[in-house]
Formats: sequence, C-alpha cells, structure tokens
Amino acid sequence: MAATPLTTPNAHLLQKTHHSQSHAFLKPKTAFHYPTSRKPFSVSCSSTIQDRPSLQSQSQDRVFNFAAGPATLPENVLLKAQTELYNWRGSGMSVMEMSHRGKDFRSIIEKAEADLRALLNISEDYAVLFLQGGATTQFASVPLNLCQPDDTVDYLVTGSWGDKAFKEAKKYCKPKVVWNGKSENYMRVPSFDGLELSPNAKYLHICANETIYGVEFKDYPVPGNPNGILVADMSSNFCSKPVDVTKFGLIYAGAQKNVGPSGVCIVIVRKDLIGNAQEITPVMLDYKIHADNNSLYNTPPCFGIYMCGLVFEDLLEQGGLKEVEKKNEKKAGILYNAIDESKGFYRCPVEKSVRSLMNVPFTLEKSELEAVFLKEAEKEKMVQLKGHRSVGGMRASIYNAMPLAGVEKLVSFMKDFQAKHA
Amino acid sequence: MAATPLTTPNAHLLQKTHHSQSHAFLKPKTAFHYPTSRKPFSVSCSSTIQDRPSLQSQSQDRVFNFAAGPATLPENVLLKAQTELYNWRGSGMSVMEMSHRGKDFRSIIEKAEADLRALLNISEDYAVLFLQGGATTQFASVPLNLCQPDDTVDYLVTGSWGDKAFKEAKKYCKPKVVWNGKSENYMRVPSFDGLELSPNAKYLHICANETIYGVEFKDYPVPGNPNGILVADMSSNFCSKPVDVTKFGLIYAGAQKNVGPSGVCIVIVRKDLIGNAQEITPVMLDYKIHADNNSLYNTPPCFGIYMCGLVFEDLLEQGGLKEVEKKNEKKAGILYNAIDESKGFYRCPVEKSVRSLMNVPFTLEKSELEAVFLKEAEKEKMVQLKGHRSVGGMRASIYNAMPLAGVEKLVSFMKDFQAKHA
Repeated sequence: MAATPLTTPNAHLLQKTHHSQSHAFLKPKTAFHYPTSRKPFSVSCSSTIQDRPSLQSQSQDRVFNFAAGPATLPENVLLKAQTELYNWRGSGMSVMEMSHRGKDFRSIIEKAEADLRALLNISEDYAVLFLQGGATTQFASVPLNLCQPDDTVDYLVTGSWGDKAFKEAKKYCKPKVVWNGKSENYMRVPSFDGLELSPNAKYLHICANETIYGVEFKDYPVPGNPNGILVADMSSNFCSKPVDVTKFGLIYAGAQKNVGPSGVCIVIVRKDLIGNAQEITPVMLDYKIHADNNSLYNTPPCFGIYMCGLVFEDLLEQGGLKEVEKKNEKKAGILYNAIDESKGFYRCPVEKSVRSLMNVPFTLEKSELEAVFLKEAEKEKMVQLKGHRSVGGMRASIYNAMPLAGVEKLVSFMKDFQAKHA
Repeated sequence: MAATPLTTPNAHLLQKTHHSQSHAFLKPKTAFHYPTSRKPFSVSCSSTIQDRPSLQSQSQDRVFNFAAGPATLPENVLLKAQTELYNWRGSGMSVMEMSHRGKDFRSIIEKAEADLRALLNISEDYAVLFLQGGATTQFASVPLNLCQPDDTVDYLVTGSWGDKAFKEAKKYCKPKVVWNGKSENYMRVPSFDGLELSPNAKYLHICANETIYGVEFKDYPVPGNPNGILVADMSSNFCSKPVDVTKFGLIYAGAQKNVGPSGVCIVIVRKDLIGNAQEITPVMLDYKIHADNNSLYNTPPCFGIYMCGLVFEDLLEQGGLKEVEKKNEKKAGILYNAIDESKGFYRCPVEKSVRSLMNVPFTLEKSELEAVFLKEAEKEKMVQLKGHRSVGGMRASIYNAMPLAGVEKLVSFMKDFQAKHA
C-alpha cells in the first residue's frame, strides 16, 4: 500500500529537534496548484523542509507543563504520533485500530520491549509486562503474586504512594511498616543501617520517587531477609536515570510521568518469582498469565504502548539513561539553586541528599503570594505549578520531557517575582 | 493562547463526511511564498477547503478493516483526534499531557459521560464509570462487587466470552451455568422460557454479543430471582443499537469494538448495588471507589476516554442509536443475504434469529479456498477477515464504524470470488 503523505501542523519545528527522527518531513511537490484566481486551492502537504533556520524554542502555542502526571511528553514524540495517527507507516489504519495479534502491532510491542530492555539493561531473567490498571493495581498485584496471606513483608514508607501501597497490601499478606516518614512530613529517606528489617519478609517495598513531597532514593536498601527481594514503585522516576535492575525482584511504573500517556503500567519481574499467585488473584492481576502471553492475554492498551515505544526510541537516541540523567541533574540543579539562593523567599523542605530530580516542591515565605505566583506564571505559559492538594504550596515536576528551556524560564520568572515582591 | 493552526494529512477528505464537525479546515493564506527559484519553500497548513467536490470514498490509502477488536474507528473521529493531538483546543498541550484533575480533562470526561447518558438514556439511578483493565477485569469485578463468596449466580453461556466470565466468577462466588451452547457450537440463544434459573441467584449474566461465533441477543431474559439483576457484557455491541438500561443492574463494555481504542472499559451500574464489595477486592476493582471519585480515584486512561468522547459525539450527530441501528441492520442484511444466496458456497451456521449485526462468521464450502480468499481480499484492501483462531473460517466484523462501502465491497468481492471458483 502506498505510503500516506506525511504532514504535521508544526512542521516548522522539525529542524529544531536534536534528535534525528525520520518523521514528518515536507518536501515540495510539483503538484502544487498555484491560484490563478480567487478560487481556493488544494494543498497536499507532502514536502521536505530544507534549509530552515533551526528554532530555539518550541511552538509559541505550547505551554511549559509542570504537571506531575499525566505530564509533558517529548514534543518530537507527539509530533510523530500525530503524523502517524491516521495511517501508521502504510498499514492503512491507525495504531488504535490494529488487531493486537496482527503483525503490525506485534512489531510495535516487541520493539517497545526490546528498547526498554536496552535502556535499562534488563536481562532475560526478567519478564517485561505492559499492563493496564496503573500502579494502584500493582499495590494489590505485588502481594497477590509474591506472597501468601500469612507472609510478612516490609514497607519503607517515604511518602503518600508508599503509604497507599502498604494499605492495599494489608488485604493480601502481613505487611509491616519498617519506617514511616509521615511524622517528619516525609522530607527524608532514613539511613538503611538503622532500619529494623524483618528477617523473614518476602519482600521489602519502596517507592523510589515520591511525587508529592519530592523525595527520591539515590541508592537502595538491601532486604533484611537474604532470600527476600526488593520491590520498587518507580512510576515517577522510571527511565530518568540508569537503574541496576538486578538489585530488584520487581519494579513497577505507571507510564504517565516519564514514558508515555496514562493507561499503561510497566512491570519488570524476575521470572522465577512468577507462578504462585494466590487463588483469589483475578486473572488480569496474575503475572504468569501476562508473562506467558507476552502481555497479549487480552487486548492490551495498544496506543499507550505505542507511545511508550516512541519515547523509548527517543531516549535511546539521546544516548540512553546516562545522558538523560545528566540532563535531569542539570535541570534540577538550576531549580534547586534558585530556591537555595533566594535567601528564604523560596523554600524546599526536603533533605538535600534525597531531593527528587523529578518533582520539586517549594513554598513561598510569603504564602499569601502563592495564588499570584501561579497566576502570573500561567500568564507566562508555565502551568500546573500548584502543589499537590494534600500539601499546598508549589510544585514543579520536571520529568525527562520538560525542556531545559522550561526550567530556565521558570527560574527567571522566580527571580523576577522575588524582585517584584521582596 | 492563540489557537494552533489546524491541519490534517487527509484534508481532502473533510468534505466527504456527513457529519458537521468543526475540525480541520484549510483556508488559503496570503502568506504562501511562491518559488521564484529552485529553493524549497515553506508551507504553513492553515487553510480552509471550500467548494471541494464531496468524495464518495475514503482515502485511497485506508483499508477496510474487518478486525474484531481493536477495530476500525470512524474516520472523521481519527482525523479530528489527529488534528488536535499536539494542541487540544488552544490548551497548549496534548490530551495525553493533561492533568486528569485539571479543568480541560474534567470537561472532556464530563462531556463523554453526558453524551453516553444521552445516547443510552441512562438515568441518575446509574453510575457511569470509565475504568482500565478491559472486560476481562470485569469478569472478576462483577462477582467481587455484587456477591459474597457463598452467593449463587447464574451464567447463560452463548459463546467463549460468557464462558470465560463464568470461569473467573468461580473464584469469588458460586456460579451456575444455566445453559451452555458449547455442545451445539454456540450457534443459538435458548428460549428463555425453558431455562432453569436459580430462584436465589444474585444475578443472571449474559454476553449480549459473542464475537467468535457471532450470536447476539435480540431481547433479554428476566432473572429467576425477583430480587436478582441482569448483568450483561456488551463489549462487542455497545452503542450499536438502543438498549433499555433499566432492564439491567450492570452493563460493562470494553471500548475497543464500537466506541474507542483499547484501554477503556465502561461500566454502567445501578447505584444501589454499589458499596458491598468483598474485602479481598483490590481497590481498583471496587465500584464504590470509582463512583465516589467520578472515575478519577487514580489516573484514568485519559486519551482513550477522550477518543470515546469523540465517538459518542459522532453517534449523537448521526441521530443517536436508533439511526445507528438502522445502518447496522442494513449492512448486516447485505452481507447475510450474500451468504444466504450463495447456494451454499458461503455458509453461516448461526441460527438466523440471533445472527449478530456486529460479527459475521462464515465458512467456504470449499474450505481449501479460504487462504486464497483472504489473500485476494487483502489485495483489494479488505483485511482482518480471518476467523478467530479457535474457530477458523472467515469472520467479517462490521461494527458501527465499518462504512457501508466496506460491506458492499466485500459482498461484491465475495460474488466475484464465487464466480471465479465455483
């Protein structure tokens, strides 16, 4: 089937990307009909843009979106998805219309998995699953698959998400909270040496990055039980930096922070841990069912998986997670410095060694100015800076896809705002 | 924020739709730079197509996709989604990037729900939920929410999906199969009078349309228990015809047949039935959690819900489900007639009164020709006609979005094929 002419409403942006993407290029067609009268003419946008000046900024209509998830996606990924939406690569249909068992979608999901394995160096000891139900379903799936009802498990709670995971686990096993940062307002990760870990815990659960209070693990604890495993919710820092997957028995991550739209949850699980799910486990929560069927037991969230695949390709093109981590450290560094150098006008309460690279919560010394801050930032096309409803204050989520320019603009704005309101 | 210029790679199609959609129109800009030399020029596609001849057929690159789900989507819906993908209605971001709790996405999900209520005339006695996990998760959610472990429930099994629902329910209650069509190859629905329904069954479960064998309920049984409710899996005929929702306690439907992409499952449940889920119910499977939070307890499958919303709008613009049903009856009628009039060259085993309007399975008298049939159909851009892997033969799925032209083309092809191979 002939390839569909490619186009994009923002073709002028294509030269600006640093990544070589073979997506929509417009090349001039000889078939343009120049108007000889006032009659409207047809434009078939199949053209190559050549020799265009590279642009330093994104489309003027695009905002800098600091939301915590769903979150900003890489612009080039969005544009590519847009180009391909109606007709994916000559298939004559959209990804959304494909049979999940057909060869086109199989190629999409297989490539997404292969690219993720490459990014995180995931060995064949581990299954990679693309599931529905979000991380919140995993709060149940993890104990249902890894434990029996009488099994002890340890939860190290450094924020709201770890707390929710703990509460859900109570239904399915005997979870114990080995440390809870709540009384200190969730602003640190404890020293691992001081923890009282259960010697017989089937697993130790952490939330690697907590979005609400902005605390991120920089290294990982070892389970108290030598036969126990480490389990991590990495929803909000997944693919933001390298991770030694071999330290973990299971990693789960909702896609909608760093790697895609909502509706996909990725589970990386050591294969030997699969196959002993409790009898009450719904079939859709049973890792063995999904692993045996390469995530195709039922209809997977196809379009979301496709989007994740585009993101994984993009991350590989950027040079992989070491390069991505450098960018994230730079962005976060600029923002934390601005906060630290503001002489208290802006404050971030998180213990410095565990400040998240992904979510930066801060308050204003003059809290009465917070509403004005948000309003003026929005006028400058910086949106979703309001802190989580359970916390208040401000929060800038600066995932992989937040451009450096967005952070720079925010910091510049923060300085001006301080000058105006000091 | 200024609206993003709208474009579509298939702008020439826009006049063909019967539905007035205010999506991408291209109007000629005065800013076109005509090439005075061989230097390539820029095209900014923000133009209106006026006075174009209406087209009778879809883009020449688009196939007729007879897949059973995921399935073909309405072309105008795809084009609209494509247009809006990068920047939704001046928001400066994609739907995929929106905070699910922000006002833009709230407006999207609220409109989707309102339109669905209008389509199916759903009263406020019912909650409408947009969930993840597919219909397969509902196989567990239904008994977990509606029953206690010792409760009896009845399953009327007319195909593979009803059978799977029954098997999953065994984990959570005491399901009884009151009729099973398997021994007859699932080609009919029994008379309701002859059924031995349990007088104390909490619910009676049916699968309103079975995709694999092509059997569709044309009317509905009444539970044996006067206090029991009727539960239906309507995944594959949802919104294909009017339904009296008041006959049901609960209806569930994976979107990816008639109303959207995969990753969204809609549940319509009477509110008084919610709130007594078994203790082992994962939070993500608890209807009360989702009803209390308007499907926003956690991050919903936002883009999928948005796509469903576009489909609901389109169905309303077509005049609602009565009009949609007429179209479906016409399409199915043409195809079944062609089969019936083929003097046995094509055969459909389903009892005529329950032939599905959505899925038409058929075999060739000369079964050795089936591979050739599929290959030649594919050359003619009619794809996914192979029967389900558990059945073999052929299957044409002709959901709402399959154009009449697709069915006409298939029938014409079938007649030619027969003439060639008789």
